[in-house]
Amino acid sequence: MPAPTPHRRSDYPHHLAIPTRWMDNDVYGHVNNVVYYSYFDTVINQWLIKEGGLDIAHGEVIGLCVESRCSYLAPLAYPAVLSAGLRVAHLGTSSVRYELAIFAEGADGADDAAAQGDFVHVFVDRATRRPTPLPAPLRAALVRLEKR
Amino acid sequence: MPAPTPHRRSDYPHHLAIPTRWMDNDVYGHVNNVVYYSYFDTVINQWLIKEGGLDIAHGEVIGLCVESRCSYLAPLAYPAVLSAGLRVAHLGTSSVRYELAIFAEGADGADDAAAQGDFVHVFVDRATRRPTPLPAPLRAALVRLEKR
Amino acid sequence: MPAPTPHRRSDYPHHLAIPTRWMDNDVYGHVNNVVYYSYFDTVINQWLIKEGGLDIAHGEVIGLCVESRCSYLAPLAYPAVLSAGLRVAHLGTSSVRYELAIFAEGADGADDAAAQGDFVHVFVDRATRRPTPLPAPLRAALVRLEKR
Amino acid sequence: MPAPTPHRRSDYPHHLAIPTRWMDNDVYGHVNNVVYYSYFDTVINQWLIKEGGLDIAHGEVIGLCVESRCSYLAPLAYPAVLSAGLRVAHLGTSSVRYELAIFAEGADGADDAAAQGDFVHVFVDRATRRPTPLPAPLRAALVRLEKR
Repeated sequence: MPAPTPHRRSDYPHHLAIPTRWMDNDVYGHVNNVVYYSYFDTVINQWLIKEGGLDIAHGEVIGLCVESRCSYLAPLAYPAVLSAGLRVAHLGTSSVRYELAIFAEGADGADDAAAQGDFVHVFVDRATRRPTPLPAPLRAALVRLEKR
Repeated sequence: MPAPTPHRRSDYPHHLAIPTRWMDNDVYGHVNNVVYYSYFDTVINQWLIKEGGLDIAHGEVIGLCVESRCSYLAPLAYPAVLSAGLRVAHLGTSSVRYELAIFAEGADGADDAAAQGDFVHVFVDRATRRPTPLPAPLRAALVRLEKR
Repeated sequence: MPAPTPHRRSDYPHHLAIPTRWMDNDVYGHVNNVVYYSYFDTVINQWLIKEGGLDIAHGEVIGLCVESRCSYLAPLAYPAVLSAGLRVAHLGTSSVRYELAIFAEGADGADDAAAQGDFVHVFVDRATRRPTPLPAPLRAALVRLEKR
Repeated sequence: MPAPTPHRRSDYPHHLAIPTRWMDNDVYGHVNNVVYYSYFDTVINQWLIKEGGLDIAHGEVIGLCVESRCSYLAPLAYPAVLSAGLRVAHLGTSSVRYELAIFAEGADGADDAAAQGDFVHVFVDRATRRPTPLPAPLRAALVRLEKR
């Protein structure tokens, strides 16, 4: 299992600062593998809400995760401020595949990703949970993150 | 992106009961995608500790996650008791690839997985964090979970 | 600050088994102080849902936490199965004060609480978030947990 | 149970910005009561590490939480950047009682705390877990946060 080539900071059009929390570290003293997915959820949904008009409390359309994946390349730890990069790898009628990477910041800042992965959202009707075409404002926000 | 074929309960030689918790549900009312990885960590390490003699506090060898993945096939929610299935797909000198699946239990019990994924551990020296061959008791515990 | 007297297992009319998870341990190797509150939330809401008919997805009345507290008397760790005890200390028109305690189980089982605390729910209308009298089925379920 | 008087932003000599995460919201759409304690842990330990020289990986002295408490005065939600205020209410030989408050930021910024609580650390020897006097650098860092 050869390690994947790290993505670069400049590969990503959008970044969100994510300070680590005490509980992000597990008993081995580094950010636990589970927690990276919480960073993924956070940067994705914040983009959808702030740029795409997603209304997580009352909107008719919500995004459900159907697949996620992460490769861990270098350790991270609390306390630190990380940066989560986000781009769109594939934009379908009712689904989107994001690519994400987590970078160390500040004195430990690096251009190589400490972790990278992907995440697939299917957008569904909140009540029926059946796939539904992406609303125009959401689509417009996601187009801006497409890989060139 | 066609959905994968669900694994069956009988595909897994080991199962651990995992009751859901209030905070497992996210704002959409189901177990959040992140939390499944916490179930993965829990069933894997409990096997390594109880069957393979892993000492997470003081042992010289620890397992670090280098890759994880999950496909989400059906929703789950608190309150419920779930079952986490574990098997070994590949056992190397210093690494292991697990396959995992999460099943609903009780009245909602089903033979088809609600989620399934995999997880790769590399075993390293606790101090140097360099890969190290799997200790014999750990290897023996993992051989018992190999796919036939 | 003298440590409080530990509550006893028999002080509690209801108990829920709570297996610990890998991420419950923090960097110091024991269940983190935050996680105990997640056990509190879990045992309380499971009682309200299963015995009192609380509908967390669609019900008109929901319970909001306005105060919580915990004293930590002895360490706990993953892996282990714990027991969460629950009783009602005060039942008002629209609020309830629970008392809770966490006990070690199995080989490490003990009659003395490893942690104990309390938690106040105010029941409110889901839409307006204004206090509302407890529905009769919820009240009936809580009366059964009152301290004698 | 009358609600306590909200603390003010200026009551606190130290503040840490804490962006909320997707999983901080529970099924009712606001930051779950449990998560506030994770904010407490984060602001306290970051101060101890950065200002007081606490070494969570290898130091001889570690801080264990023996008591915590929180009052919830107003709802908070993801996405948002919060501010966690920290001060020292009592500094003993081997223990410290912190007071903490969480404030909304930005457009929703307010001078009144959305939640406030306290948290007691006992400092112990990492190996024996017996109370030990606070090391001088830690004490010096905590004196700077004492209430005037």
